[in-house]
Amino acid sequence: MGLALGELAKCIGGQLQGDPECLITSVATLQDAGAGAISFLANPRYRKYLHGTKASAVILSAEHAGECPAATITTPNPYAAYARAARLLFPASGARQGVHPSAIVGCNCRIDDMAWIGPHCIIEDEVTISAGVQLQAGCFIGTGSRIGNETTIGPQVTVCYATDIGARAVIHPGVVIGSDGFGLASDDERWIKVPQLGRVRIGSDVEIGANTTIDRGTLGDTIIEDGVKLDNQVQVAHNVRIGKHTVVAGCTGISGSTDIGHHCRIGGGVGILGHLEIADHVTVTAMSLVTKSIPGPGSYSSGMPVQEHTAWNRNVGSFREIDKLVKKLRQPGKRAGKTG
Amino acid sequence: MGLALGELAKCIGGQLQGDPECLITSVATLQDAGAGAISFLANPRYRKYLHGTKASAVILSAEHAGECPAATITTPNPYAAYARAARLLFPASGARQGVHPSAIVGCNCRIDDMAWIGPHCIIEDEVTISAGVQLQAGCFIGTGSRIGNETTIGPQVTVCYATDIGARAVIHPGVVIGSDGFGLASDDERWIKVPQLGRVRIGSDVEIGANTTIDRGTLGDTIIEDGVKLDNQVQVAHNVRIGKHTVVAGCTGISGSTDIGHHCRIGGGVGILGHLEIADHVTVTAMSLVTKSIPGPGSYSSGMPVQEHTAWNRNVGSFREIDKLVKKLRQPGKRAGKTG
Amino acid sequence: MGLALGELAKCIGGQLQGDPECLITSVATLQDAGAGAISFLANPRYRKYLHGTKASAVILSAEHAGECPAATITTPNPYAAYARAARLLFPASGARQGVHPSAIVGCNCRIDDMAWIGPHCIIEDEVTISAGVQLQAGCFIGTGSRIGNETTIGPQVTVCYATDIGARAVIHPGVVIGSDGFGLASDDERWIKVPQLGRVRIGSDVEIGANTTIDRGTLGDTIIEDGVKLDNQVQVAHNVRIGKHTVVAGCTGISGSTDIGHHCRIGGGVGILGHLEIADHVTVTAMSLVTKSIPGPGSYSSGMPVQEHTAWNRNVGSFREIDKLVKKLRQPGKRAGKTG
Repeated sequence: MGLALGELAKCIGGQLQGDPECLITSVATLQDAGAGAISFLANPRYRKYLHGTKASAVILSAEHAGECPAATITTPNPYAAYARAARLLFPASGARQGVHPSAIVGCNCRIDDMAWIGPHCIIEDEVTISAGVQLQAGCFIGTGSRIGNETTIGPQVTVCYATDIGARAVIHPGVVIGSDGFGLASDDERWIKVPQLGRVRIGSDVEIGANTTIDRGTLGDTIIEDGVKLDNQVQVAHNVRIGKHTVVAGCTGISGSTDIGHHCRIGGGVGILGHLEIADHVTVTAMSLVTKSIPGPGSYSSGMPVQEHTAWNRNVGSFREIDKLVKKLRQPGKRAGKTG
Repeated sequence: MGLALGELAKCIGGQLQGDPECLITSVATLQDAGAGAISFLANPRYRKYLHGTKASAVILSAEHAGECPAATITTPNPYAAYARAARLLFPASGARQGVHPSAIVGCNCRIDDMAWIGPHCIIEDEVTISAGVQLQAGCFIGTGSRIGNETTIGPQVTVCYATDIGARAVIHPGVVIGSDGFGLASDDERWIKVPQLGRVRIGSDVEIGANTTIDRGTLGDTIIEDGVKLDNQVQVAHNVRIGKHTVVAGCTGISGSTDIGHHCRIGGGVGILGHLEIADHVTVTAMSLVTKSIPGPGSYSSGMPVQEHTAWNRNVGSFREIDKLVKKLRQPGKRAGKTG
Repeated sequence: MGLALGELAKCIGGQLQGDPECLITSVATLQDAGAGAISFLANPRYRKYLHGTKASAVILSAEHAGECPAATITTPNPYAAYARAARLLFPASGARQGVHPSAIVGCNCRIDDMAWIGPHCIIEDEVTISAGVQLQAGCFIGTGSRIGNETTIGPQVTVCYATDIGARAVIHPGVVIGSDGFGLASDDERWIKVPQLGRVRIGSDVEIGANTTIDRGTLGDTIIEDGVKLDNQVQVAHNVRIGKHTVVAGCTGISGSTDIGHHCRIGGGVGILGHLEIADHVTVTAMSLVTKSIPGPGSYSSGMPVQEHTAWNRNVGSFREIDKLVKKLRQPGKRAGKTG
């Protein structure tokens, strides 16, 4: 229970100013911390709470250390250092092993002895579950799927057949992986289903938020590369590829066959059309709509911020005439012989 | 089966004009109602159906009573009175008690004798389930959670560890409460997970729609206050607070640490960025994006209504020049010495 | 395993140019196909891969047949023909029959002998399950519901009481059908629940994507007609009607009592307000907001495409003055006596 401050500083890679024997037993925000707690300053918004904090120690950058009334651990990246500290102080609850008697396991499965299959899980045939996997209650793992070392899967997750999930993934409740994509062919005023014959392949160190859905490929696979983080209620269509270490915030939808680069940051509520290519290191801000490929890094937006309702309504009304307006405005310019 | 009209009028608090002995056995819209049915007029859109209704009685405001061919119950708030009438005529199906033999209950739980734990539910350790709770099939309740009196939880709901839910809540199928929030620290071109150590606390008389997700706090809790109503597929991130009696329509996403006041009305498909403060009594209309705090009551919008596609495309093209346009327009004004 | 090319051409209704005895054993894209594979050319974007394909045969329109190095099956609708070919080569995995011993079936149910009830399914009372139905693991089917012939329901689906689902439907994991709609009456600063007494009725040949939600009617029913296809994470509110063969892409929300015609195409991330009427053959593009009824066929948009972030910010700033701008611009017109 708790860690000496000196040991903590060493483990998280920071410079300690203060008593190395001080016992740290909890983490808290600057404003809520008390004795025994370690806190952090990462977002400048919270700097105002620094001088009054009751924390026993604060993780922060060197430039703010002078303002801190408590012991300090200085580091260039206080938030990452805090994350490491919190993980040391509050390790994930102990891994369990075995298969709960209410779970149902099919034929020809390879369940590692060091994995845990929770109550009411259903494992179909030919499934591979590696060491350290924690399958919480009520999960479904379809035929031929493979789950890598130390991956944790929350309650009520559905993993459809032939899905590959790497090591150390964290998959939250209600996620669906490997459902059929929206593949339809128009045929004489009706829609016929195009068989979805591909799979979903997920790399290592991926996190997938609650109730997110990832469709299997039509031909070829849907691919989520190493280190990708998806928030809650994200929709990933068939044959999408998401490159390494890209993050996608909640409620975003990515249409079929779109290819997203590595180290991108896609905001919440974004829509990305199908068959596009998004370069590496692209940021798309919240509620934007991407209708074309983005060939290079940079930040892109189209989410429109709120206004007071009646002002907004007037502006929307005028927006509907904007094209005519622009044309009108060009006329005098032309007459003046100035337009290029 | 059924209630006398006089008794019904008394229970819902309205003024009866008509036979108090008339037996009411059903509810219906003005246009579909027949003998024995009670209907209502709340939305003026449906007033055209009033004079031809075959209902035995109609709940409506006094000003329209004269146009009604049937018995009337007049009240200033016909829709609320109708809601009460429908609840009297169609009470929720009888509460069950006990624990279904297929349910799995952990150690040190306190399950009230007057609660029902449905088939294939999984209750972890140290869970408190109060009197009258109805846990439908296949729910998961994590360690240390508490569910208040008479709360109903639909099938396949996931309540993660240490969650608090108040009395008389209604939680619809597929909801996930207490999943980890999207807490990531950037560290040398990768993302490391920030432990999510807080909880979710939900007040009384809260309703949560199907497949909605509510993340637990990072430090401190995510809080849903009394009387809040969330529609389907709403996403509530870590450390959000939603004040009393606020309603949030479907597909809306609320980012981390945002604080929403009481009696707000948030439309469908809205996005609200993180770390904002939304005052009490704020209305945000459908598909708006809130990027800044809203300091006072009022109605706010940014959802852009559809136009015919080619007109829209032309306007979008011109929008991309609007900043230049405005600058141009200011020039002549300046020349004319008229701009302020 | 595999089909002769001549038989395949006959079954899918195309004109074969090539060896009818050639054995086809797989399907693949033009660029990935090898010997034994049949491919197709439908999207002109992929025509560049045609001349170099290693496929044994390609399904395409007559105009491109001359460019193809392999055997060809020509047809006016190559994508539909491909879909049929893929379904012949990869028929859905064999239907199972019976009731898994871990499933729980209530009283007075009619489960056809040719239906399959998977592990841990829960069937309440008076449920009808027709021949050929495949209920995968962990589904919940509420009292009085009926599932038509050969409908397939994925894992962890919730079908609430009194729901009607037609024949040959495909319902993906995590779907919720028949949850209560967002029916609230304002009553003295609080919200009271309006009982949701209607049902959900779903036609035949409907497909419903993962984690989509469909609410039951308040009075009267929510109706999904024959041949409708809904993608993942779509939200359909109470008393909506969706007409035959309409398709709705992912993350779209449709508000209460809205009536959508037949053969519509609704893009992803769209919001449609309540109590509207959308005509037949209407297209709404991605992330549009429909605020009024649409009386006739056509294509409608309001999704704003992304721009580079700083340009966008400047344009948004100017947009907030657009109404004033338009008024200013009208002034000179008025002075010139030309405005209508």
